[in-house]
Amino acid sequence: MARAALAPLAVSLGDPAGIGPEVIAKCWDNRNSFALPPFVAIGDPRSLAAVWDGPIELVDDPRQADSAFDYGLPLIQLNSPQADVPGHPSVAGAHTSLDSLEIAVGLARSSSASAVVTGPVAKEQLYAIGFQHPGQTEFVAERCGVSPGNVVMMLAGPTLRTIPVTTHLPLSEVAANLSSALIESRGRAALRGLQRNFGIADPRLAVSGLNPHAGEGGQLGREEIELIEPAIAALAAEGWRVTGPHAADTMFHSAARADYDAALCMYHDQALIPIKALHFEEAVNVTLGLPIVRTAPDHGTAFDIAGQDRADPRPMAAAIRMAAENASLRAEVIA
Amino acid sequence: MARAALAPLAVSLGDPAGIGPEVIAKCWDNRNSFALPPFVAIGDPRSLAAVWDGPIELVDDPRQADSAFDYGLPLIQLNSPQADVPGHPSVAGAHTSLDSLEIAVGLARSSSASAVVTGPVAKEQLYAIGFQHPGQTEFVAERCGVSPGNVVMMLAGPTLRTIPVTTHLPLSEVAANLSSALIESRGRAALRGLQRNFGIADPRLAVSGLNPHAGEGGQLGREEIELIEPAIAALAAEGWRVTGPHAADTMFHSAARADYDAALCMYHDQALIPIKALHFEEAVNVTLGLPIVRTAPDHGTAFDIAGQDRADPRPMAAAIRMAAENASLRAEVIA
Repeated sequence: MARAALAPLAVSLGDPAGIGPEVIAKCWDNRNSFALPPFVAIGDPRSLAAVWDGPIELVDDPRQADSAFDYGLPLIQLNSPQADVPGHPSVAGAHTSLDSLEIAVGLARSSSASAVVTGPVAKEQLYAIGFQHPGQTEFVAERCGVSPGNVVMMLAGPTLRTIPVTTHLPLSEVAANLSSALIESRGRAALRGLQRNFGIADPRLAVSGLNPHAGEGGQLGREEIELIEPAIAALAAEGWRVTGPHAADTMFHSAARADYDAALCMYHDQALIPIKALHFEEAVNVTLGLPIVRTAPDHGTAFDIAGQDRADPRPMAAAIRMAAENASLRAEVIA
Repeated sequence: MARAALAPLAVSLGDPAGIGPEVIAKCWDNRNSFALPPFVAIGDPRSLAAVWDGPIELVDDPRQADSAFDYGLPLIQLNSPQADVPGHPSVAGAHTSLDSLEIAVGLARSSSASAVVTGPVAKEQLYAIGFQHPGQTEFVAERCGVSPGNVVMMLAGPTLRTIPVTTHLPLSEVAANLSSALIESRGRAALRGLQRNFGIADPRLAVSGLNPHAGEGGQLGREEIELIEPAIAALAAEGWRVTGPHAADTMFHSAARADYDAALCMYHDQALIPIKALHFEEAVNVTLGLPIVRTAPDHGTAFDIAGQDRADPRPMAAAIRMAAENASLRAEVIA
């Protein structure tokens, strides 16, 4: 109901040599079967033409996408200094991908777009042009005036949502990087995100243990007792519905998943193994803690298969659908 | 075909106060719908009668179970010094569970039973009576004359088999406990087990990385380069089909699972999260590296629900079925 009133979504094409242009074009091709709302892509039309022969509708403003969407893929045109070849990333392409991201975020910040969906970028090339952030998420946070420490990555699929407390750390450094304060702040951001983006008034958060069997009463590690339990107690004291620490191996089967709205996990693979085992084609990366809605498919540029018509558009379609749902629910919460 | 000639299976009841007796009795009740072969239980009949009013057929020898199985649950009777109350473990019950295990192993060692399936025991009570092993697996290994270091735990479900290289360690100690030699020996045991127990002539083993994204070329940890890759190379040099190190989060979705027969994982939750997320009710613990077939349901005594008719017999049924299949395939391999 609220969706009809929402502005179109802004979708950055990501690296022009990656699979971003292909999966976004395939999303437009399958917009009806994928049940996608109107969106506008932002990037160089040559990166689309290199992998797709469908119609492009050039627009200046996302609002034009509503009417253009039936006739072609609405595109806000960027002109890359050179046309990229699929599978061969370049510094020029990195500039284009960054411009695309920046414009998409600006459109959402100004409410011209109802949400941002980001195509995959190549960090190596971005670093070569002076990009200083660990990834797109931190860039988006900065452009929104939010400290990167206050935004949280959620992986969301049809029957499971997970949030990693720590992310890209060697496994041997995970324990030393955990603290009650960090678990607490990630948990709070997750709970608020469930309210704002998913419309769950009184969300339930299940917190995992770090060690096998959640430490088995301290015999297999003490982080549960010393770090995780205090964080759970602190969140519970604020009135949130938080349970745990749960043994990680027994919290992701279907009956267990019915007991919570999201699982707060201690490290990267603890969060990503279950979501990808269960929902590989539909897992969406949702950034919580921003003033705007931002989602992304949970895959990379896949340069090795770019330009071969082999990329699966379902993760991008899931990211677009979830962005629209989140934006719609946010509009209701704020209204 | 070979199964008809196999001796019945020996099933230890496990701790008499746990859910072992209940799930084993329920397996007999549902022997037709669960497609279970004849088995003989070993334990105190009072622990069955406390939770079940079905018929018991006392036997002296597993061979009698073939004909008795249609009329009642075949049982080799043990007499506990006292009748245990469900949910209330005792030292007497620990003695009975250990006797049951010892007899079951002996029957399989002498080929009177074709395999052993073990009900869940209570380690705390076993330790109280002087049990010196970390768990039943190590006890079975010793009784079979095999060094505990040479047996390997596999978790097996309908579409995934995983083997953890390390098991009950705090997460912060996993990296320090990994070595190429350990990964190699666990991998070799897993591959041999796939041949012997699962009848796969040229098995494919997928080896996980330890760190996020399998270390991302050393940027997120160096164990992949320093420990895991050499182990994979060593196994490949012996002619085994081994791939990896794979990023753990992208190796368990259905398309990825089709590329291997088992996944060798670096730590407990890396192996157990995916198997339980996908196959919670059917995950079987299979001990590889033994001269006998031994399986177990992948759950504990669950004292908190014992005697309440709430225990799910499907994991035990899966363990019994897999024991029979493994024994049948072993008989073919050996014949």
